[in-house]
Amino acid sequence: MQAIFEEISVSDFFYRNRELAGFSSPSRATYMVIREVLENSLDACEEAGVLPNVKVSLSTVEGKVYRLTVKDNGFGVPVEEVPYAFGKFLYGSKFRLKQSRGVFGLGGAMALLYGQVTSGMPARVAVSDGGDIFEFKLRIDVERNEPLVEGRKRRKNVNGWHGTFVEMFFKGDYPKAEGKIIQYLQQTVIASPHAEVEFIDPAGRQRVFGRSVEEAPSPPVEVLPHPHGLDVEMLRRLVRRHGSKSLLSFMVKSFQRVGLATAKRFLEEAGFSPYQPVSSLSDRDILDLLDAMRNYKFPPPDAKCLSPIGRDALEAAIRKMFDPDFLYVCQRPPSVYRGHPFIVEVAVAYGCKNVEAGNGVSLYRFANKIPLVYDAYSDVSMKVVKRFNWSSYVSRPAAIAVFTHICSTRVPFKTAGKECVADPPEVEREIEMGLRECCRRLKTFLTGKIEVEEHGRRMKAYRRYLPEIARLAAELAGRDKPPSVADLIEEGGAWR
Amino acid sequence: MQAIFEEISVSDFFYRNRELAGFSSPSRATYMVIREVLENSLDACEEAGVLPNVKVSLSTVEGKVYRLTVKDNGFGVPVEEVPYAFGKFLYGSKFRLKQSRGVFGLGGAMALLYGQVTSGMPARVAVSDGGDIFEFKLRIDVERNEPLVEGRKRRKNVNGWHGTFVEMFFKGDYPKAEGKIIQYLQQTVIASPHAEVEFIDPAGRQRVFGRSVEEAPSPPVEVLPHPHGLDVEMLRRLVRRHGSKSLLSFMVKSFQRVGLATAKRFLEEAGFSPYQPVSSLSDRDILDLLDAMRNYKFPPPDAKCLSPIGRDALEAAIRKMFDPDFLYVCQRPPSVYRGHPFIVEVAVAYGCKNVEAGNGVSLYRFANKIPLVYDAYSDVSMKVVKRFNWSSYVSRPAAIAVFTHICSTRVPFKTAGKECVADPPEVEREIEMGLRECCRRLKTFLTGKIEVEEHGRRMKAYRRYLPEIARLAAELAGRDKPPSVADLIEEGGAWR
Repeated sequence: MQAIFEEISVSDFFYRNRELAGFSSPSRATYMVIREVLENSLDACEEAGVLPNVKVSLSTVEGKVYRLTVKDNGFGVPVEEVPYAFGKFLYGSKFRLKQSRGVFGLGGAMALLYGQVTSGMPARVAVSDGGDIFEFKLRIDVERNEPLVEGRKRRKNVNGWHGTFVEMFFKGDYPKAEGKIIQYLQQTVIASPHAEVEFIDPAGRQRVFGRSVEEAPSPPVEVLPHPHGLDVEMLRRLVRRHGSKSLLSFMVKSFQRVGLATAKRFLEEAGFSPYQPVSSLSDRDILDLLDAMRNYKFPPPDAKCLSPIGRDALEAAIRKMFDPDFLYVCQRPPSVYRGHPFIVEVAVAYGCKNVEAGNGVSLYRFANKIPLVYDAYSDVSMKVVKRFNWSSYVSRPAAIAVFTHICSTRVPFKTAGKECVADPPEVEREIEMGLRECCRRLKTFLTGKIEVEEHGRRMKAYRRYLPEIARLAAELAGRDKPPSVADLIEEGGAWR
Repeated sequence: MQAIFEEISVSDFFYRNRELAGFSSPSRATYMVIREVLENSLDACEEAGVLPNVKVSLSTVEGKVYRLTVKDNGFGVPVEEVPYAFGKFLYGSKFRLKQSRGVFGLGGAMALLYGQVTSGMPARVAVSDGGDIFEFKLRIDVERNEPLVEGRKRRKNVNGWHGTFVEMFFKGDYPKAEGKIIQYLQQTVIASPHAEVEFIDPAGRQRVFGRSVEEAPSPPVEVLPHPHGLDVEMLRRLVRRHGSKSLLSFMVKSFQRVGLATAKRFLEEAGFSPYQPVSSLSDRDILDLLDAMRNYKFPPPDAKCLSPIGRDALEAAIRKMFDPDFLYVCQRPPSVYRGHPFIVEVAVAYGCKNVEAGNGVSLYRFANKIPLVYDAYSDVSMKVVKRFNWSSYVSRPAAIAVFTHICSTRVPFKTAGKECVADPPEVEREIEMGLRECCRRLKTFLTGKIEVEEHGRRMKAYRRYLPEIARLAAELAGRDKPPSVADLIEEGGAWR
């Protein structure tokens, strides 16, 4: 029997294996469709430098078929890119070296594909930069991974709206997904405190997840790769692209943190002539150059391609949502794993309102400003929280909420559904360090709190017995009037 | 600032996101490289209908760079397919409707890619069907997702070997991966009891994981799709391919379990003319036809595309490895989720040797004859085992080993690294049913065991006191000789 060999397209691959992108059941798919479209909108607004106002609306069409619309106030994508940006897998603007919510170039197309194969209906996408509105009816040709434009309209823009509007139909299960979706939306405005998200659910209930800061974070800036983040493949590609340059100019132009002086010193130490053309490097040379780059101490990667939430913004968002008795936010300095820069932010809150106190520690995980609400037990943050030596800091780890955020040009997600983060040792360590710092503060707070409570108990006893003692003492001494104890038992008095 | 839109190839996607395919750290990658190549070998042998003898050898080249060779006794892939089968993503023979270990068309290419980008070295692949040996030196052009053949040789085959030989170099961490790799190899021959795998580790130690049955399982047979497994996309594709056929012939030729009579009855009930050409179906018609197909009671899917391990083979393998006091293997009847047939096999063993007894239940998970040794906590089997009502069956769930195997044309893996299975309700239910059946048997066994122990305790007391009582009774009665109690206290005697 002869096996049949064939090739399938990447869209066909994800069509056949949609579990891999998180579309594993009708309820999970409902959650995924909403988040993929919403995250694209937030990225678009951030790119455009506007405070995001995103309206998400979900309604029932018939049976289990839902209609989703998402409308934002960014500036849309260029008109000619619309069919590809939405209707083609592995096409997009997120493959550059700067932080964004989307990273795989899958999400939008995956949402469309899922809608198309479950409802049989095309999606509608409209964009405007403030001028005319361009509207597309789109499907994906799954076998070829190409967009199919079924309709195209240009309309006058009467009220000057700018942004992106997406309408799609899909089979889902909102009742089962509701809990996770609401959680996700609540946490979205914790991680993006400058965003406002309005959500209308299939029952027509409107919920507004409001902003807690009025300033957009400074957008991340694209950077060149760092010499420590390279492997053979990437170095080969760069060499191919810069064949005619000298090694010296190649080093300076291709990498961040490599100036003329550094490049020269490095190349000489590594035994390369700075002026030989890149194209003259043999396979062996490339391996040697790579090795030398790995072992040379270049300055650490630039973190301007990253956009952490920020201590103040994260604090404002958590206070607004949970109103805790104690809160400390720690932003760790930029660090590196496999040459990719990353920043970890950790917050610990104690005595949160609006949540069931629960037993033990509640963990809220974020990555590149995305809340992660599934698969917590496979996540590096959970690993750290579980083995953390809580007893050194608190008598019992109850009613504590931990928030972790990792942002990077390359978050090590374990799945294309972006639900949990892998555990490179460097990332694990930074989370642990952040958690420790927060918990040291918590301990100080709790010790103070215990002292205050202790003092209160003492004062209560004094207030009860001191007057009696004073009376008895006066009686024994044969005096008429007992001595005054008011000074002693007054709040903040001498016995404190 | 204008965003830059671009397209990347599927190999570039997995190159950038190798965590998604399970290559998340040097140790994990070591494990993945071995398993991907080994699983391809086992599939090839199964396809060829031979008892697999696979030799895996890992050695240190320098530093953290390893050399892996895997040699099997299948019949190789056709010579002209070698570069594509090994050097191109989403190319292969595994996209058909029958069970195989590989399903994503990723594994082999991913292993090669990982080797190439970490070691900078090409891979070597040799195949033979018993005639000449054809050898290739291969790389992948990652940006274009195409194989690059760097060398090609044809050699005389002096000893008549047939099969596939792969040699590759990669950066890894064997010491850290060793535990998982040995576990994986041990369990491989549980799930494929007809296979023998020899492994030589970097220290030169040889381990042989031997076969426990001498018969190859009957290979799975490719089938047509079942009408209940369809969605709009797949129906559209079929319609496109069979445009000129009548609806009646389309139904019979495109689907399994649909004969002429069934097709006619179905089409008439659904309001379609059996003789209209498929090409005349409108978009709306296709949706209606799909709906009708979903609601019509066709016979259940054919399970001949599946190849379960089998009760006897699984029992032999577990007995050989663990030598348990009690073992029961249950094979559930074929079932269906989303139109995909699947079979669940569950085994429960009690009193296993060669393992630490451990607390609670040990779980061994398999899918399409692959052992799953990572990410147990995200797996449907773990979910079932954890919430299972053990107290109805055993006083404490200790020293119990549970084995679960799901085979399907479409195992709902959660990740492309194939480490854990998602939880469609139908799959969950079958695992639970299998576990219950095994545990009922276990309960019967344990109850019997308890009775035997209870009897033993009673007999011991009798043996101690009865002679004494007899002596006293004789004394009281003034007799010389006490009555004989031997009958009463003999093992298997009247007092049993």
